[in-house]
Amino acid sequence: MIRAVTYLLLSSLACFVSAEDDLGPRQVILVIGDGMDDQQITIARNYLAGASGQLLLDRMPLRASVQVLAVEDKEQGAPVYVSDSANTATAMATGTITSRGRIATAPGTDKDITTIVELATAAGLRSGLVTTASVTDATAAAFATHVSSRRCEDPDHMQDVTVYGFNIADCSEDLKANGGPGSVAEQLAESALDVLLGGGRRRFAPIVEGGTISVEELADQNGFHLVTNTAELLSAKPNGKLLGLFAPGNLPVRLQGENKRIAEDPKRSWLNHLHPYLGSVQLPEPMGCEPNPDFEGTPTLKQMTETALAHLSHNNDSGFFLMIESASIDKQAHERKPCGSIGEMAQLEAALGSILEFAARQPRTLVVVTADHAQVAQLIPDQSLFEKYPIPAATPGKLARIKTPEGAHMAVNFATTNFMMEEHAGTAVPLFSNEEGLGRIPPFLQQPQLFQIMRTYLGI
Amino acid sequence: MIRAVTYLLLSSLACFVSAEDDLGPRQVILVIGDGMDDQQITIARNYLAGASGQLLLDRMPLRASVQVLAVEDKEQGAPVYVSDSANTATAMATGTITSRGRIATAPGTDKDITTIVELATAAGLRSGLVTTASVTDATAAAFATHVSSRRCEDPDHMQDVTVYGFNIADCSEDLKANGGPGSVAEQLAESALDVLLGGGRRRFAPIVEGGTISVEELADQNGFHLVTNTAELLSAKPNGKLLGLFAPGNLPVRLQGENKRIAEDPKRSWLNHLHPYLGSVQLPEPMGCEPNPDFEGTPTLKQMTETALAHLSHNNDSGFFLMIESASIDKQAHERKPCGSIGEMAQLEAALGSILEFAARQPRTLVVVTADHAQVAQLIPDQSLFEKYPIPAATPGKLARIKTPEGAHMAVNFATTNFMMEEHAGTAVPLFSNEEGLGRIPPFLQQPQLFQIMRTYLGI
Repeated sequence: MIRAVTYLLLSSLACFVSAEDDLGPRQVILVIGDGMDDQQITIARNYLAGASGQLLLDRMPLRASVQVLAVEDKEQGAPVYVSDSANTATAMATGTITSRGRIATAPGTDKDITTIVELATAAGLRSGLVTTASVTDATAAAFATHVSSRRCEDPDHMQDVTVYGFNIADCSEDLKANGGPGSVAEQLAESALDVLLGGGRRRFAPIVEGGTISVEELADQNGFHLVTNTAELLSAKPNGKLLGLFAPGNLPVRLQGENKRIAEDPKRSWLNHLHPYLGSVQLPEPMGCEPNPDFEGTPTLKQMTETALAHLSHNNDSGFFLMIESASIDKQAHERKPCGSIGEMAQLEAALGSILEFAARQPRTLVVVTADHAQVAQLIPDQSLFEKYPIPAATPGKLARIKTPEGAHMAVNFATTNFMMEEHAGTAVPLFSNEEGLGRIPPFLQQPQLFQIMRTYLGI
Repeated sequence: MIRAVTYLLLSSLACFVSAEDDLGPRQVILVIGDGMDDQQITIARNYLAGASGQLLLDRMPLRASVQVLAVEDKEQGAPVYVSDSANTATAMATGTITSRGRIATAPGTDKDITTIVELATAAGLRSGLVTTASVTDATAAAFATHVSSRRCEDPDHMQDVTVYGFNIADCSEDLKANGGPGSVAEQLAESALDVLLGGGRRRFAPIVEGGTISVEELADQNGFHLVTNTAELLSAKPNGKLLGLFAPGNLPVRLQGENKRIAEDPKRSWLNHLHPYLGSVQLPEPMGCEPNPDFEGTPTLKQMTETALAHLSHNNDSGFFLMIESASIDKQAHERKPCGSIGEMAQLEAALGSILEFAARQPRTLVVVTADHAQVAQLIPDQSLFEKYPIPAATPGKLARIKTPEGAHMAVNFATTNFMMEEHAGTAVPLFSNEEGLGRIPPFLQQPQLFQIMRTYLGI
């Protein structure tokens, strides 16, 4: 009832002020924590703020749940219950449910689907994408490019794309020679984006399809000013198109396990191999998290975010759309590195601080924070619930026991596959918003609805 | 001056209306889905409503997240990151953070902590507890009794309590002979509860400590009318104290896997045992869910809920507190039975339908639905994210592949321990509320805060 009244009031107000108010332009800032489900948030909260503490996320006035949806790769395909970053970013960027691996293209047909960045450009708004992954990686890509497989990131990876020696993708139909838009990197270089910051410089080195210049040179021709380190990022003038490429691939992460340790197999005695109730099992020793030396010199997500906000808001009467991704919450969880995920949650929190300060200064800024899909790291008991039974049972998967600053041990379990990378989970994911979201975002929504909400807010 | 006058006017008005308004009494109905985290909700939604469907829960106007907290079993103990149903029910029932296994008693000291049922009784409100578990099990117990271990459920299980031959609990200090309140069953039989429905009749058979009558006879002396089957439940007159005990232990669940199948180990070739990238792995065959024949004749949670509501609201000008638990979402997940958990989610949904109808008729009824703690069942890809790599990797745990009514397969993974029962997860849990919760329940809260919110709402 109160919500309904609020909604009516806001609707009336929107009609009243929409045409010629003096509140300035409208902005949407969409923050995506890749794989940032409630498990990841709880694990990060315990480490960063304590079991009873609060993250900045927890203080946001709106919290909702998002239904994550994927389908088989054909028209009218059956539902697929677990998603990846490609189809979920497509859902948020275009409002369309597609199949795993697809970048703003339709299941089965490969038809390109208009993205919110393209709509913003057409309406005269600015736009930006910021990520701690390669800018050609799935999440950023789906907001501004169209390709049948997320693996087709540059002109050298369009046909028979191999990873670890296995042929896992082919984007022949997306080749320019076949009437397609080309690789992700080429499309980004030619895009109308005002700001594009992240990693992936090696994706801009190849020669463009059917041309003689590199993708980086193509971006230069399209007016992008290239920066490649923190000093250049921080001193970039806030006008013109800005391209930041701060690593060959994904950016290094902020934290790692002590001595680079990750989740490990419990050590089982030979008797325990015969039956899990026999012999003994030694759990991995607890470990701390420590700064990752490779991160030194890398711009933080907060720094990239602040630069993007300065660029997009500079002398801008038209508003903007900005997507900010903390990408390696997911990537580190795939690799069973909970300290890495925690550090990237901290990066998201720091960037969010700057975003909320910006939104406090700039009225009509809708801030939405959400995950694209759920991850599979699990916070399980460090002391088993069944410890009183004298049985050496332990996880069949891999475990990290993390020493937290409040003097306790937090056990994080990874056990969805014996492959080198963990799977994703199919759970609904959380969504947070600032006051601008109240009355506009329901407590439960389908992921594609987010596209409609952002589009309506921007009036595009 | 004007402000002061306004304040005085409003205060007088508040005094005027608070005592003698005509909106009737206040009620709180707390629905606990044991272990009902977002994984369980998503799994149940996919099966019961489809990947794009909505549960009744999803249509509730308020959704929040609850921080679940436990501590070591000593005064000023360090945090423990994963909880059980005893300490979490204690948090909701008393507003106090305690250690795992404790029932409304303080960590270290065993001091009894007043529960919301006791406060309701003292204030002249009615109260009821309904569960699909034994009424002496942890969740219901923590709302009306006090004991150092959840295992001390009846007079025969107070000292050296053994389970599977292992001594796992001792409640000597809670014996009446030692000045304590006795076992959970004895305390329930002597309680001021108006309605108590669930399983656990065998807990009421033993002779009370230091007496000559059974716990059931003690309950009878205390004015409880006993019903033991559905017909008796449905024909019980809506006045007087009602005790329903419909099974010797926990009530049978509604659904089971086809041919009683549960999650199973993938079958590995001998080569695959040497290295997970070699040989072959056969995943368990997909299975349907089917009605559990043992459930026949058992009252549904909906029937128990409707009877409880009729009893508690009959000629009642004072209001009531009612806790409803769907207990076996968790218990079935411990046993790696996802069909069982889905069926108990369906039971919760059906009961919630009746509760929301009651709340629509009866103003000032706060309905809160939440989980006590998270569970570890995981919805993982039925077709691996890495299926394009010709490697036979599969879960190291146990997997159930469930055929859903919309014609797809849903893979549910259990992999936290090799023990016969899975662990819990430490994740924050969802909370839902009706319109009465708006403005009263923040988007993020600590579990003990829920006690304060309910208490304040009831004015007790």
